[in-house]
Amino acid sequence: MAESTERFKKVVIALGGNALQESGTPPTAEAQLDVVKKTCEYLADLSCKGYEMAIVHGNGPQIGRIVLGQEIASKQDPELPAMPFDVSGAMSQGYIGYQIQQSLRDALRNRNRNVPVVTILTQVIVSEDDKAFSNPTKPIGPFYTEEEARGLTEEKGYTMKEDAGRGWRRVVASPTPKRIAEIDSVKRLWDTTIVIIAGGGGIPVIENMDGSLTGVAAVIDKDLAAECLAEDMETDYLLILTEVDKVSINYKKPNQRDLSRITVAEAIKYMEEGHFAPGSMLPKVMAAITFARRFPGKKAIITSLSKAVEALEGREGTVITMA
Amino acid sequence: MAESTERFKKVVIALGGNALQESGTPPTAEAQLDVVKKTCEYLADLSCKGYEMAIVHGNGPQIGRIVLGQEIASKQDPELPAMPFDVSGAMSQGYIGYQIQQSLRDALRNRNRNVPVVTILTQVIVSEDDKAFSNPTKPIGPFYTEEEARGLTEEKGYTMKEDAGRGWRRVVASPTPKRIAEIDSVKRLWDTTIVIIAGGGGIPVIENMDGSLTGVAAVIDKDLAAECLAEDMETDYLLILTEVDKVSINYKKPNQRDLSRITVAEAIKYMEEGHFAPGSMLPKVMAAITFARRFPGKKAIITSLSKAVEALEGREGTVITMA
Repeated sequence: MAESTERFKKVVIALGGNALQESGTPPTAEAQLDVVKKTCEYLADLSCKGYEMAIVHGNGPQIGRIVLGQEIASKQDPELPAMPFDVSGAMSQGYIGYQIQQSLRDALRNRNRNVPVVTILTQVIVSEDDKAFSNPTKPIGPFYTEEEARGLTEEKGYTMKEDAGRGWRRVVASPTPKRIAEIDSVKRLWDTTIVIIAGGGGIPVIENMDGSLTGVAAVIDKDLAAECLAEDMETDYLLILTEVDKVSINYKKPNQRDLSRITVAEAIKYMEEGHFAPGSMLPKVMAAITFARRFPGKKAIITSLSKAVEALEGREGTVITMA
Repeated sequence: MAESTERFKKVVIALGGNALQESGTPPTAEAQLDVVKKTCEYLADLSCKGYEMAIVHGNGPQIGRIVLGQEIASKQDPELPAMPFDVSGAMSQGYIGYQIQQSLRDALRNRNRNVPVVTILTQVIVSEDDKAFSNPTKPIGPFYTEEEARGLTEEKGYTMKEDAGRGWRRVVASPTPKRIAEIDSVKRLWDTTIVIIAGGGGIPVIENMDGSLTGVAAVIDKDLAAECLAEDMETDYLLILTEVDKVSINYKKPNQRDLSRITVAEAIKYMEEGHFAPGSMLPKVMAAITFARRFPGKKAIITSLSKAVEALEGREGTVITMA
């Protein structure tokens, strides 16, 4: 029976943006909660299969709205200064973690499974020398005129880039996650508790010479943060959930081909051929490759929420392995 | 030696607003971080004395600014709708928890004490039947005209009250905390980790008939939430840190008298005589009374950050005990 052989296997789950917000729904916390509740039904089903799991979620649209709202408010009221980007990330972990924590607890209780669920605020350490810092690429916050952009560069040291004719935006780096600062607590809770961790890829911090941590304006890819966690915890699976059931080559072309099982070598070949879109499928495949390479014999899986259970049982999704 | 006899004693610490923000400093996250760093020097000293501690902090000014900022932004941009109050509370836990977690870790490392520090997002359960809900008293968010206030009552069901001639404001209830939803994780981490918990008194939730949780617009007093935690953990001390070294009667009058040691009966007498200001010293004394009454022989202490170590050693602050 699948259930008994799979019992106590460990899995890190990376949740894509569609697990939090559906296209066409309003950008309210209330609408998001409805989507999160549906997502948690699937996650609760996974837990009931006996998997020990931790959850990493994205935060792109949410932190975007937090930053935009602060910009607007700060212009109207000097008593409402905008927060640094790392603090906005911490706030988005609060917002999203709370909704998942509450909804997943309830979905588990409905299944008579009283597993605690908690969100741990998470700092993820990146290297100050990461070459991403010399080429920031992730646009955040509002659009500005060229003149405003120049002013922000002078005043605050922001890197500003012109964004496809729509105006100028601040861009920040997307460095590689090195270490989860709060990993000890995850380890301590893992056996008994579902931990929501490294939300939005984690609050990016650098480690100073004296070992102290300082928040930086950067965006850590949440799939890579999930991989980092899966490595630390030596989990059986890295499960990356997104909008599609399987990874494809020639995506949305007449000759699209869905992939069920690929090796790291094949994945790298497809990647080099440009089959995976940057900021979308590419970081997921890269995270999967890193995990499969680190643990030959273990599986990284990319699939949709609704296929997650079957994918872990080997009947769905795209499985990436070393050989 | 005080150090060795006090080792491994458990203490819940409630941090007042002055631990996060100093009067006269700008309301920025950067200025707050500077204050938090100073606060964490004191907390690290406490930890070095061997106390096992958990930290509960306030969030009044911070959640106030989050709510105000969202109101302003939502009027300018329909894509930035204001969050429900419970979500704003979760965001404030992210904001403040992150700063304490980072600063306390660093302060401990400077003392060669590598104790992990984590923030757990916390829901605190209140009773739907709490009589506070029929008499909301806590003002939150912006001021409105009478007409706007009437509109908000009709449209959103808000309770609005006129605020000392300055306009109309939304008021929410301040119910009594019943239970910390995430207490299991606190218990599991306690021995090894400093946990930041129930920030702002916790995200207020009610427990529905089916056992599920729903966030509500309410403010839980953080001193009472700290007491709730101290009861659950059966800690040796409840330590409430505020701006003054000791509780006083006839506060700021010529006949002010600072109190070093009082019984629950004396505290109740002073309370009934109106010596303690509501929303200020009153909830602290009430939390202390509840703890001292629940655990005869144990001490609730009210003092300032800088006197915390001496107060736990019995040489400072106001100690409240059953007899």
